[in-house]
Amino acid sequence: MELQLEARILAKNDRAATANRELFQGHQWRVLNLLGSPGAGKTALLEATLKALGDRPEPPIQLYVIEGDQATDNDARRIQAAGGQAVQVGTGQGCHLEAAAIARAAELLNPPHGSLLVIENVGNLVCPALFDLGEAAKVVVISTTEGDDKPLKYPHAFRAAHAIALTKTDLLPYVPFDRDRFLDCVRRINPTVPVFEVSALMGLGLGDWCTWAMGTATETADAPTVTG
Amino acid sequence: MELQLEARILAKNDRAATANRELFQGHQWRVLNLLGSPGAGKTALLEATLKALGDRPEPPIQLYVIEGDQATDNDARRIQAAGGQAVQVGTGQGCHLEAAAIARAAELLNPPHGSLLVIENVGNLVCPALFDLGEAAKVVVISTTEGDDKPLKYPHAFRAAHAIALTKTDLLPYVPFDRDRFLDCVRRINPTVPVFEVSALMGLGLGDWCTWAMGTATETADAPTVTG
Repeated sequence: MELQLEARILAKNDRAATANRELFQGHQWRVLNLLGSPGAGKTALLEATLKALGDRPEPPIQLYVIEGDQATDNDARRIQAAGGQAVQVGTGQGCHLEAAAIARAAELLNPPHGSLLVIENVGNLVCPALFDLGEAAKVVVISTTEGDDKPLKYPHAFRAAHAIALTKTDLLPYVPFDRDRFLDCVRRINPTVPVFEVSALMGLGLGDWCTWAMGTATETADAPTVTG
Repeated sequence: MELQLEARILAKNDRAATANRELFQGHQWRVLNLLGSPGAGKTALLEATLKALGDRPEPPIQLYVIEGDQATDNDARRIQAAGGQAVQVGTGQGCHLEAAAIARAAELLNPPHGSLLVIENVGNLVCPALFDLGEAAKVVVISTTEGDDKPLKYPHAFRAAHAIALTKTDLLPYVPFDRDRFLDCVRRINPTVPVFEVSALMGLGLGDWCTWAMGTATETADAPTVTG
């Protein structure tokens, strides 16, 4: 009974996600869905991405953000303060964003054709992995402070990821995190996913990440699988 | 319809939690339910607690642990390596532990009368807050690397907490975390909850935490609200 209802909720969401995908393609929006624990550094990565995109020589791509949180509009205000456009979606007790809410938020933001639209999901490495939002790619954001075995412990999110951003690399000298062990754990769950190693605080490793995020990198087998 | 089913799932869990509470009281087990993000330092806190309890002059209280994870028995093996008794409960895609699974795990562990039994929930600051496991107290574990505004962004977990363990205080010099702002955010959600500031890595702040965890502290209005 519970499983049937869960299946029904997911099927309803999948229909809305399919509609989103058509909406996004119609507007030529590249849409990324960022998943990660509370405090993994999702918003900080977006702040640093805004800065890095603004510093690039080519005409800057526009970055628009849909922020999902149980409460507060702290993250939308951070994006706006960094020069981006953002809307906040409050989920209350909800543990993830659903496709229907994303359609409304995207239409409210209404980015120009060709924009990059990033959905920052509710801080949660578990539930958001199950809900398709119609995005082009899911990105798992995980920080060096969370431990190197997390891909094995939360395999559903890491398996669903089209890219991984390993954040807070500036803290590597101070935390018990074995980078090789982490990459090995990633490979066991998701053998070909690209991993971008970044420090938003120090502005490190953002070039390759931005190129991938903009969708201008060739997403084939010869894409960088580890880069920093 | 979805809300009705969610209410039914919660009601079923609440009945199992009530049975758990009777089971725990019958055995005089003090049961804590640890909630927090992946990588918040829950397992490390338990490893450090095992060591700190062993170092105390009084006859050591026995610590038993039920580990909840989507996959792997990494955490149960860490507790066993630190000298504790542990069983692992795998949740698969599940985002939280439920009371019925805890009853089975507790009976399997079967600690002696008067033991401390800690349930380490699935790494998730959102969903586990909704599910009563029959525990004496919920403890939110949050690290300094997760950011000082998290109590406001995840209010349900912080409101449900009977204690908060702020972990990884050794990283304070390296992370943008304003301790006073964090404590202010905690107070706005949960005015009287005790906050224990600890570093498992450096073995700091564990004395007051262990005293509280064992249940030998007087849990009244004059309990420490901030301690480190």
